[in-house]
Amino acid sequence: MENLQEEVLPERIIDEEYKTRRPISPGAEKWLFRPISCLDHGFVVLKDYLGNDSAIVEAARVSYGKGTKSVNEDIGLIRYLRRHLHTTPSEMVEFKFQCKMPIFVARQWIRHRTASVNEYSGRYSEMPNEFYLPDEAVLRKQSPTNKQGRADDLTPANKKKVLEALSEVYGLSFDYYENFLKSDIGLAKELARIHLPLATYTEWYWKIDLHNLMHFLALRLDSHAQHEIQVFGQAMARIINDSVPIAYKAFEDYTLTAMRLSGPEIEFIKNYQLGNEDSTRAEILEKFKNRRETDELMEKLEKLGFF
Amino acid sequence: MENLQEEVLPERIIDEEYKTRRPISPGAEKWLFRPISCLDHGFVVLKDYLGNDSAIVEAARVSYGKGTKSVNEDIGLIRYLRRHLHTTPSEMVEFKFQCKMPIFVARQWIRHRTASVNEYSGRYSEMPNEFYLPDEAVLRKQSPTNKQGRADDLTPANKKKVLEALSEVYGLSFDYYENFLKSDIGLAKELARIHLPLATYTEWYWKIDLHNLMHFLALRLDSHAQHEIQVFGQAMARIINDSVPIAYKAFEDYTLTAMRLSGPEIEFIKNYQLGNEDSTRAEILEKFKNRRETDELMEKLEKLGFF
Amino acid sequence: MENLQEEVLPERIIDEEYKTRRPISPGAEKWLFRPISCLDHGFVVLKDYLGNDSAIVEAARVSYGKGTKSVNEDIGLIRYLRRHLHTTPSEMVEFKFQCKMPIFVARQWIRHRTASVNEYSGRYSEMPNEFYLPDEAVLRKQSPTNKQGRADDLTPANKKKVLEALSEVYGLSFDYYENFLKSDIGLAKELARIHLPLATYTEWYWKIDLHNLMHFLALRLDSHAQHEIQVFGQAMARIINDSVPIAYKAFEDYTLTAMRLSGPEIEFIKNYQLGNEDSTRAEILEKFKNRRETDELMEKLEKLGFF
Amino acid sequence: MENLQEEVLPERIIDEEYKTRRPISPGAEKWLFRPISCLDHGFVVLKDYLGNDSAIVEAARVSYGKGTKSVNEDIGLIRYLRRHLHTTPSEMVEFKFQCKMPIFVARQWIRHRTASVNEYSGRYSEMPNEFYLPDEAVLRKQSPTNKQGRADDLTPANKKKVLEALSEVYGLSFDYYENFLKSDIGLAKELARIHLPLATYTEWYWKIDLHNLMHFLALRLDSHAQHEIQVFGQAMARIINDSVPIAYKAFEDYTLTAMRLSGPEIEFIKNYQLGNEDSTRAEILEKFKNRRETDELMEKLEKLGFF
Repeated sequence: MENLQEEVLPERIIDEEYKTRRPISPGAEKWLFRPISCLDHGFVVLKDYLGNDSAIVEAARVSYGKGTKSVNEDIGLIRYLRRHLHTTPSEMVEFKFQCKMPIFVARQWIRHRTASVNEYSGRYSEMPNEFYLPDEAVLRKQSPTNKQGRADDLTPANKKKVLEALSEVYGLSFDYYENFLKSDIGLAKELARIHLPLATYTEWYWKIDLHNLMHFLALRLDSHAQHEIQVFGQAMARIINDSVPIAYKAFEDYTLTAMRLSGPEIEFIKNYQLGNEDSTRAEILEKFKNRRETDELMEKLEKLGFF
Repeated sequence: MENLQEEVLPERIIDEEYKTRRPISPGAEKWLFRPISCLDHGFVVLKDYLGNDSAIVEAARVSYGKGTKSVNEDIGLIRYLRRHLHTTPSEMVEFKFQCKMPIFVARQWIRHRTASVNEYSGRYSEMPNEFYLPDEAVLRKQSPTNKQGRADDLTPANKKKVLEALSEVYGLSFDYYENFLKSDIGLAKELARIHLPLATYTEWYWKIDLHNLMHFLALRLDSHAQHEIQVFGQAMARIINDSVPIAYKAFEDYTLTAMRLSGPEIEFIKNYQLGNEDSTRAEILEKFKNRRETDELMEKLEKLGFF
Repeated sequence: MENLQEEVLPERIIDEEYKTRRPISPGAEKWLFRPISCLDHGFVVLKDYLGNDSAIVEAARVSYGKGTKSVNEDIGLIRYLRRHLHTTPSEMVEFKFQCKMPIFVARQWIRHRTASVNEYSGRYSEMPNEFYLPDEAVLRKQSPTNKQGRADDLTPANKKKVLEALSEVYGLSFDYYENFLKSDIGLAKELARIHLPLATYTEWYWKIDLHNLMHFLALRLDSHAQHEIQVFGQAMARIINDSVPIAYKAFEDYTLTAMRLSGPEIEFIKNYQLGNEDSTRAEILEKFKNRRETDELMEKLEKLGFF
Repeated sequence: MENLQEEVLPERIIDEEYKTRRPISPGAEKWLFRPISCLDHGFVVLKDYLGNDSAIVEAARVSYGKGTKSVNEDIGLIRYLRRHLHTTPSEMVEFKFQCKMPIFVARQWIRHRTASVNEYSGRYSEMPNEFYLPDEAVLRKQSPTNKQGRADDLTPANKKKVLEALSEVYGLSFDYYENFLKSDIGLAKELARIHLPLATYTEWYWKIDLHNLMHFLALRLDSHAQHEIQVFGQAMARIINDSVPIAYKAFEDYTLTAMRLSGPEIEFIKNYQLGNEDSTRAEILEKFKNRRETDELMEKLEKLGFF
């Protein structure tokens, strides 16, 4: 944050200025109309916003009918709200993005039902000849332990094989697509696209309030999210971090880097401190009777410096 | 609209100007921080907004990836979207209001679940000594035909009686409230307020997108809505009309002043035109076998100039 | 409806019976666990439900605290609620379906945000070798007038060409998919599927209340919806029609077969009746200054028997 | 749970049995139509439900297309889902309650926007002569430290004073209400009730899925919730505990009795274990620079057995 001047920002695609009586967020203004590239053909760009850190404070303080307090008190209040999951005041901030992403990413994204969406339509418009071809670095093997994860690198030969196969399917699919549309065939657009791959790029406007965006980010910045959607989450996180710096810091401290201890885990730690518990994996497993839960506790204990 | 210069606007409570790269709506800027009085102690004031008529067009056109078209085409598109209930593009516009209203009005209002709300809390803060005392003009009798409506004026003597009774209850309630809180009693605020009347004023921030706001207005501007909430609907309609003039005109033409004909009604009119139907109330009733439905059709036929 | 005995129902996949104190819907019981085939590999099957026509009446009557009235009054009330868009009581009925459909259909479907969804995941599980290959009858040309519609049949030769091309892409894609997963490559599942076509079948649980389901059906039974999603809408409509017969009939009369007249259209018809308007297309166009709106009015006038 | 036979259940208000092909929950069947009394005139009664613990498993397993596994694996899966906040499968269970509560409780309750509601209407129907008169035991002073809490008992004399005052306001208000409605005045119902107290009882149908119900319970069973709404939360928790016993146990272990440690708190504990931190209140305060956050950490450390 301190070397803001030196941060290299993407170029602005529109650069007009207006006068407004609305509250502004300098950090959001900085990002307006600057698309952040994501994957090979995608992007995220902030197109509009409403509110700032003060809007959260103001909404929370409607109970008091009092004016602004000191900056310190405002920070304390925003952090208190986040810490205790009093999330409604953060609904008073809104962001509108334009985003371009592969369809398989869009399918994960759209599961968040609390946003407004307008998507490019393959029924009305021709699909572009743009498909996601992964970078070699992310071509990894199925994780043997994590059903949804990636593990070791593929061999260079296998990477080549995969990328060639993808390119072949993409090329063939698009050739037929063009053929269906433009030749004497003239197939309806809504049918001509059904064989296009899930890696085809699509585009949408996406408008969401800060509370729901943070929920989205908590899930999609997580290391268990598919890499390809994490990239979009990170782009938005960068913008949000500048737009509502106090709220974002609270989100980092109380959500992103936080840990949840279950009732049984609290019990365990307490007894352990009292010397009533050992903590070998086997002993914990005996107690929790669940392999995964035991592994999770072991990991938490380590993170807390127990061993 | 034409004599805008002469329109007397409420005074601005905050009057600062900033520079922004966000799109603006001149009509919304006009209304920012100008509270419109509603009932005896209430108000509606626009505190922030996002988007304008063009934002609707832009979202609808994401399918085409093309730049702005002519103003006429934009108007045509906005009207087309509204006419065919393609409402998602109008979710791309957002309004944030601060409002003050009697609690019984707030209870009707809050049934609209698609808004963000932060309300003054009687658990944390003292309730103000402000209660809705109706204007004499709205003190009317229960409608004998409409279970939720008002009909004839009360007699002047009865009006006086009612207003005196209300004032008495308000006064007594507030005296006890203050007593509970401030004397040696010190009752918890959350309990001290339970006897306060439904006419007590409360206050909230209310943020909603244009699509859902129009749905709210369609219901609350309706003559069947309780008069007291209509007043707030009218205040917001005035602001929205200026903020998104094209979308609001479409809303008037295609929703507020529209009429819905049911399948059986269409059938009836068609047969009537062919001379196969008479249209006395008795005959329609015979056909529709439902008193209310018959009355509704009679009213529609009259409105359409049939007799 | 009258020849219900002769209706051939799909077979039940599970056929157990329990005792319950919950209200039942005989029509819904009839459909439980009977999958209706949709397209070449898809289906819709009712897995669970809550409520029936009486649940709507009961919720609407909470205002009166009175017991059941006559069947006729119940029918009148359900129809009244629908006619006047008092839709909250119909939220008291719920349906849970399991559905299988091509991904491009799932993408249109998921835009309805008011349902609960659990979908088959290509990150965790292998995608099946099932792709939508359209029936010859639906292979039609792009409509020249309707940007999202189909028009004339393709020539038989072109149909053959299209189906062969689709089969080729499907086969090639799936071969590579299996190759990526099973050979020595071992690519992570979440990456191995990105080139699979939008016609790949997916599957989900979908739970929604009756009000929101009717909104879905109003849009997806419409002739402007893509044929492939209409098929699923029709399957659900068949189930709903039996499950809440009174509410569904009201939905047909007041929504599916209804017509909306705009304020300007009402004005036009009234003046026309008074002899103050002519009604050639040119004259209407002059008045409405919009080609599409004029066409829509002409169509409505015809439907109403004006000419 | 073990002495279920001896549990005294409220009486059933309706006791009919039907056959169904739907899955059942024996624990939910037990509670159907048995109202649990809440406060002096209120109640909660389960009127209908959809699904059970197995419905959660089934929805989560749609990814695998495999049949039921062992009971132990099902338990493990439900607990895993809850622990990791994979909450969508629990949306596949639904509960419909009828509830009666004071209006000030209803106002807190309705803030949960994800339920379906049909409420008794004072516009259509006469309000009953029923007002919440608190039990002496809950008449407590405003907490000096917790702005929304209660603390010490009122003196017996003050309790008497408060209850008499409440009764006086309730009586006077209702007398005028009856007067407005029934005498020669005939004031419209929607106006005649505006002076009735917030303690007036209202009634509604409330339908919600298990995920959102658990979110409601997490907030309303909390000791910071107003006592009067906690009572309703506890009644529903009792029903849910029997209806989906595995999911409810997971909710207890991973939500109700869980603790969240922030990033800075994790850091602190780790350093403390390494001997790099002292842990007097003053030292922690110095580090966290926030009184409330310090108190919260102190409390957590104590709960974890640190001192």
